[in-house]
Amino acid sequence: MTFTHVVTVRFNEVDRAGIAFFGRVFEWCHEAYEELFATAGLRIRDMFEKESWAMPLVHAEADYRRPMRLGDRLAIDVRLERLGRRSLTLAYTVRGAEGGAPDEDVRATARLVHAFVELDRFAPREVPDKVRDALARMGMLGE
Amino acid sequence: MTFTHVVTVRFNEVDRAGIAFFGRVFEWCHEAYEELFATAGLRIRDMFEKESWAMPLVHAEADYRRPMRLGDRLAIDVRLERLGRRSLTLAYTVRGAEGGAPDEDVRATARLVHAFVELDRFAPREVPDKVRDALARMGMLGE
Amino acid sequence: MTFTHVVTVRFNEVDRAGIAFFGRVFEWCHEAYEELFATAGLRIRDMFEKESWAMPLVHAEADYRRPMRLGDRLAIDVRLERLGRRSLTLAYTVRGAEGGAPDEDVRATARLVHAFVELDRFAPREVPDKVRDALARMGMLGE
Amino acid sequence: MTFTHVVTVRFNEVDRAGIAFFGRVFEWCHEAYEELFATAGLRIRDMFEKESWAMPLVHAEADYRRPMRLGDRLAIDVRLERLGRRSLTLAYTVRGAEGGAPDEDVRATARLVHAFVELDRFAPREVPDKVRDALARMGMLGE
Repeated sequence: MTFTHVVTVRFNEVDRAGIAFFGRVFEWCHEAYEELFATAGLRIRDMFEKESWAMPLVHAEADYRRPMRLGDRLAIDVRLERLGRRSLTLAYTVRGAEGGAPDEDVRATARLVHAFVELDRFAPREVPDKVRDALARMGMLGE
Repeated sequence: MTFTHVVTVRFNEVDRAGIAFFGRVFEWCHEAYEELFATAGLRIRDMFEKESWAMPLVHAEADYRRPMRLGDRLAIDVRLERLGRRSLTLAYTVRGAEGGAPDEDVRATARLVHAFVELDRFAPREVPDKVRDALARMGMLGE
Repeated sequence: MTFTHVVTVRFNEVDRAGIAFFGRVFEWCHEAYEELFATAGLRIRDMFEKESWAMPLVHAEADYRRPMRLGDRLAIDVRLERLGRRSLTLAYTVRGAEGGAPDEDVRATARLVHAFVELDRFAPREVPDKVRDALARMGMLGE
Repeated sequence: MTFTHVVTVRFNEVDRAGIAFFGRVFEWCHEAYEELFATAGLRIRDMFEKESWAMPLVHAEADYRRPMRLGDRLAIDVRLERLGRRSLTLAYTVRGAEGGAPDEDVRATARLVHAFVELDRFAPREVPDKVRDALARMGMLGE
């Protein structure tokens, strides 16, 4: 299962050349992650206000293939790459949202790795049930 | 006529208290402005790539009434306040997008003043026809 | 007394024309405010972690006079405009940091109004002693 | 040779937990890159305004080890990892800037890969002399 979130490249996100600053891709991917979990019933605000755990980033990476220009509408596809015992890896594809096959107009790919930690001491912990349930609800855990 | 653009308060936009950093309001208003003109057929990217004029900000202000929290969906209402000979003033209301009357859940108001300039020397110029036409097309110039 | 903080216009802060996005001015002014109070011994992090009050923005405004370009070094001058019973108004001047008289190369001016509130209910409160002391320590309260 | 640039974690850069949003690390590294080349006499603004080539990012990655908190002063160390025929890889270490050995308080590491392209068609090209000279001037090319 792939979850898709659409963004538009904004004026304050492009550089001198009219191309999105590379760091924006990480912001858009995080937005897609927020939408994915919100859609699954686990809102990021509730994580902070109601839970005793958190899932901070421990690794982030992106490859840039084609420019993302001012005004472009981009689809951010999110896919579960790996649910480990104490971590979650989500894979992202950023592509032109207008027409064409999903693999035709890829602009960038990214991978974000979250670790699960107890909030009080930032100690590693196992995947919270709510996270596993949310991913299952989105059909992302496979059969 | 009022044009409305909806945004969601994102993780990277809130502060230590879970409340949107005040400067974000200006980014959201500019987004609404980009959407307004794109809807009217005048895309901001084309302004930069095809026109000999620009419309930089000469004044910006906002009043903050109620907190805008992580995950909140906000409606940004844009209204033409004044089309002068050489400037354009747009008025913005940021309100909760879920339910309620438009004036019930106002979080912030803002006002952005653009000047029209020739690109080559940044010299003041009169309202470009394309801007006047775009506002007319959106029903914003009154009868 | 005027407090000065210097910033450099960064790649991710300029737009298609190589000019700083207008919203950046509010970020730089807030940086200058953070430095001012940190210098006076009242760190913004401690405000959040140790105090029962906060000082959120209730009004922000800026006027833009000359472009701020990629790589420009800018001095942000902060001045106390008004310390009210329940609010604080700081006035900012953004100017070229290299050579020239302070009033020669003004790029923008801004004004930020903070309200003092109790954290628990966001109810208005009088100026906290620590804020008054910090401003006094910076020589900003007059004779 | 290692070049070091210092930043302070600002209010608008931290999240709900008072910890810097992970994407900020990429902005700080790019700042350090801008400072490195400016120090070597090759200003990023001149690249855009005077050169026929550019050096866009093709890959970015970061590993996060310890939280970067509001108000923390951080040193960003930049090291040349590899100068290829058509690309440049810079390695970054983000560490607490106050006291301690450089490897004692590492918060994050990052790697940014730039490709060299001709501006007109974005076609790959060899390392521009000005880039090689700048790196040599900084003592980064080894003996």
